Amino acid sequence: MRDIDITEVKAWAREGGDLARHYFNNVVGKRKADRSWVTQADVEVEQLLRNRIAARYPDHGIMGEEQGVGEIDREFVWSIDPIDGTGAFVSGLPLWCVSVGLMRRGHPYLGVIYMPILDDCYWADAEGPAYRNEEPIRVITAETIDGNDWIAVSSNAHRIFTISFPGKTRSLSSIAADLCYVARGSALGALIGRANLWDIAAGLSILRAAGGTVRGLSGADLTFHDMLDGRKLPEPIVAASPEMISTLRGYVSRR
Amino acid sequence: MRDIDITEVKAWAREGGDLARHYFNNVVGKRKADRSWVTQADVEVEQLLRNRIAARYPDHGIMGEEQGVGEIDREFVWSIDPIDGTGAFVSGLPLWCVSVGLMRRGHPYLGVIYMPILDDCYWADAEGPAYRNEEPIRVITAETIDGNDWIAVSSNAHRIFTISFPGKTRSLSSIAADLCYVARGSALGALIGRANLWDIAAGLSILRAAGGTVRGLSGADLTFHDMLDGRKLPEPIVAASPEMISTLRGYVSRR
Repeated sequence: MRDIDITEVKAWAREGGDLARHYFNNVVGKRKADRSWVTQADVEVEQLLRNRIAARYPDHGIMGEEQGVGEIDREFVWSIDPIDGTGAFVSGLPLWCVSVGLMRRGHPYLGVIYMPILDDCYWADAEGPAYRNEEPIRVITAETIDGNDWIAVSSNAHRIFTISFPGKTRSLSSIAADLCYVARGSALGALIGRANLWDIAAGLSILRAAGGTVRGLSGADLTFHDMLDGRKLPEPIVAASPEMISTLRGYVSRR
Repeated sequence: MRDIDITEVKAWAREGGDLARHYFNNVVGKRKADRSWVTQADVEVEQLLRNRIAARYPDHGIMGEEQGVGEIDREFVWSIDPIDGTGAFVSGLPLWCVSVGLMRRGHPYLGVIYMPILDDCYWADAEGPAYRNEEPIRVITAETIDGNDWIAVSSNAHRIFTISFPGKTRSLSSIAADLCYVARGSALGALIGRANLWDIAAGLSILRAAGGTVRGLSGADLTFHDMLDGRKLPEPIVAASPEMISTLRGYVSRR
């Protein structure tokens, strides 16, 4: 069922990214001022996305990082993060992105993640493969893990977890980016903290379409319906190919 | 003494970055193939830089990541890393850079680091401040550390160190980038493993010109003359403002 025009959603994400990019690096060295600039960018991009969605799909719900939860008692609810990776954005780091996900009856349905600095657009329709730009992408599986394999971890992982993964860990500063780099087969997996739905909604659709999955660090199956009202994930999650999930979980323990 | 034309060095770094960028993302999903592409990019960029340097400064020495150590018994020795952050490069991550440093009598003299994806050029002459593009940059000092402060750490830090830093840790995948983000006052500091001279030569000049310094994790003072022949740093180092160094060292212990 191709009831949503994803080409249009990609255009919205790109429009939001272009808007945010005007604020990027506009203030340097004044960290407090940087933070308020960013808030302004977040607010403007979210408003832009909400306007586009509401005009095109007036009977859909929307929940987003800045304006919070609207009408969620709908078949379709958009979950948007205007700038995922705020910390990266204020620090002049490149991996922040615009994340636009659509949930249907509480399940990830489709998603678009646009990274303005790389000009990379990751996306997945309700059917078919996941893409980086026009190229299909796929998660990877490793029989053995070598020193060049890497997983994405959150930037507070050093305080929360002991990680014995024999390869590298990288904190990309954006959960949406974490999921994209797993989906494209660059990272073997990602260890993600207690995210909000807008952090993961788009990425979950892209990851699934790329052959990947997520599971709670405890091993629990996950449902996302309860997150529509703004609740966070009940526990950290691991994202990877289905074959890698339990291996990766085994490398992580709570400190 | 302004005996080196840094404008020209910046142009070389940019030329090298533009060359490397042609290889970036040219192959996706084939990790082994990706790695050989990169080697090709590394080799070509280093050759380009060596050609430029040798033509302009025939009596200077050169040491670099790919071709190794040449004549180092000279007053001036260039230390170049054609692509610092190879792992980032092959993974489609944005923070790889071209690093061109000049050592004089074993001391960092000047440096240029160019990040093609961000189109950011960090540089410092033998005199004067450090710059990001045309903007002077400066390290930061924090009286108290909050959850938004961050330090750059190496991608194997999880296996080597226990880190109790109360803010965030980020692994940018490039030592040269680590030093730039400290120099510009985004990161409070960086924890860097046993680097080669080509990883740090340019960054040390930029960091110093931005008011920062480095020290061994043990607290030892560092000299770099012995690294001209290809030896690595004797121990991990911490880079930060002089006021932050011992505070940051206190957050790190060996596992």
